[in-house]
Amino acid sequence: MSTLRQDPTTRAWTIVAPRRAARPHFAVIVRAPDQPEHDPNCPFCPGNESMTPPEVHRISNGAGWHVRVVGNLYPALGGDGAADGNGSGLFRERPGVGTHEVIIESPRHNARLDEMSVEDVGAVLLAWRERYRDLEGREETGAVVVFKNAGPMAGTSLNHPHSQVVATPVIPPEVLRRFEVAKDYFEGTGRRLYDDLILSERTAGERVLEERGTFVAFVPFAAPGPFETWIAPTAPQPSFAQLRDPDIPDLAWLLKRTLRAVRLTNDDPDFNVVVASAPAGQEAGSWFSWHIKVLPRLTTAAGFELGSGMSINPVPPETAASEMREVLREDALA
Amino acid sequence: MSTLRQDPTTRAWTIVAPRRAARPHFAVIVRAPDQPEHDPNCPFCPGNESMTPPEVHRISNGAGWHVRVVGNLYPALGGDGAADGNGSGLFRERPGVGTHEVIIESPRHNARLDEMSVEDVGAVLLAWRERYRDLEGREETGAVVVFKNAGPMAGTSLNHPHSQVVATPVIPPEVLRRFEVAKDYFEGTGRRLYDDLILSERTAGERVLEERGTFVAFVPFAAPGPFETWIAPTAPQPSFAQLRDPDIPDLAWLLKRTLRAVRLTNDDPDFNVVVASAPAGQEAGSWFSWHIKVLPRLTTAAGFELGSGMSINPVPPETAASEMREVLREDALA
Repeated sequence: MSTLRQDPTTRAWTIVAPRRAARPHFAVIVRAPDQPEHDPNCPFCPGNESMTPPEVHRISNGAGWHVRVVGNLYPALGGDGAADGNGSGLFRERPGVGTHEVIIESPRHNARLDEMSVEDVGAVLLAWRERYRDLEGREETGAVVVFKNAGPMAGTSLNHPHSQVVATPVIPPEVLRRFEVAKDYFEGTGRRLYDDLILSERTAGERVLEERGTFVAFVPFAAPGPFETWIAPTAPQPSFAQLRDPDIPDLAWLLKRTLRAVRLTNDDPDFNVVVASAPAGQEAGSWFSWHIKVLPRLTTAAGFELGSGMSINPVPPETAASEMREVLREDALA
Repeated sequence: MSTLRQDPTTRAWTIVAPRRAARPHFAVIVRAPDQPEHDPNCPFCPGNESMTPPEVHRISNGAGWHVRVVGNLYPALGGDGAADGNGSGLFRERPGVGTHEVIIESPRHNARLDEMSVEDVGAVLLAWRERYRDLEGREETGAVVVFKNAGPMAGTSLNHPHSQVVATPVIPPEVLRRFEVAKDYFEGTGRRLYDDLILSERTAGERVLEERGTFVAFVPFAAPGPFETWIAPTAPQPSFAQLRDPDIPDLAWLLKRTLRAVRLTNDDPDFNVVVASAPAGQEAGSWFSWHIKVLPRLTTAAGFELGSGMSINPVPPETAASEMREVLREDALA
């Protein structure tokens, strides 16, 4: 029997409908062929640095670069463009100012976060935070969105491992919503939503994947999609900019393990990773806490989801967490 | 150069970024093979009526059924189920009561709305409205969502033409949002948002696809996705339940033509259709108006969209409307 569950961080409803998993299909799967360690035609491979827009940041080791950040060749936002429509009446329009960068996660064309060393994953997280801090500080920035698209169903066709960071001139609706829901909770209860949420999940236990240092990974009670997993600091930090250097190895360990668990439970699905953080300049909003969402693309948003804003999740979060814990126990690489 | 446009009906922002259309890929395309007019294994084909859950409605002609409405074999909502989790604290849960039905649009396995007669499309719209009226009137219903998923990228793998109707026990967030944004506009201006919107679009003209009777089809100024087209009554009606019989042929004509234009401009893409309507029992909310959204699945929501709630549209709405008008002028079938 299906149930409706409400996400306390967004107030969105998810329909948890286990019987729908018996449907003839689950999601479209499109597999990329196995990739070489180096692709001479890949703009992100070493030796082809001149094929990308200018480099804005790099993390080096002795011999070359470990992580490289460049402009996006096809930016969604950028430059100084003036809006060319009319900005009046019901046709509100503004220039698409902002920044769109690509974080090349490894010199190796076929590297994967779930197979990289914890140290190398940590270098990627460090690059995320460095770019977040820089872009957040710019006057025109409303929010910074860090994300990763892995595979065609997740919105990318580039195989070389990469993530992205976008600085928007407005506060995007989902960023604002999460922030305001947490503020409203604080004003109504005097408590911090993410303190209560993490305490509730740790107390219940059944949806917790793992803990490490000051972080916990769990499948949230009202997860909109199957195997969606969040990684959150156990002591709230409003902004991802506040992630401290000494905490990065633990976060990297949990992210790698979570991605490993997603891969092993679901035959290596495409996935997104999103950093949910406060609007720019809101480090003092102590009622909020940043968190990372790992979103396997196992279902397709159809007309119902598009029209209602509700989600349908065919895998109960407790089942997903249990299966993920199980594969991690049995996997030597994880 | 990209611009940000705000949808006045949801206040969501779309990034219109034409340069991104030059990216190596646009969307995953998965084609179903050509279908026969009758498939002996299809549960929706004539002769297999016993393979479906019980019939709740039918529209007949002399020889048999034209349109048939049955329960969904894998309902997202339904029955009397009690929530089996705890409904307390941050874990809010409620029973998944509601209704989930399938509208079989034609006895012909390979029929398509854009190739059917206007009369046959009208029979489908009539079935939508009849089921909407019936389900809306039930005490437990918060809203009724009518939608169609066409093709795997739109969330279906069943080839036989069908649409769906779901009655939810809560008012879904997008339904509530559209209703409240329109109410807020009315309270702030004394005018009806959809009157102003449709007047603005008709005055501008460049995004209008066609008009017919008391309906207009247009690509909205801030369309979240490429070639997204709305069909709206020119005189607002809050609820889809209020669609009048004599207006159905004009609406059917516009829907058929819009789907034809989407098909011809984009090599027959998968698509969704969604009826945006008022919450159940809100026929008196005269500040609102139902409208139909045709949503070709030409892009994939990636990490940025999932994390921000903003959309990226690589095709300016003016360009999409112009291309659609062009193919309709040249197409004999449309």
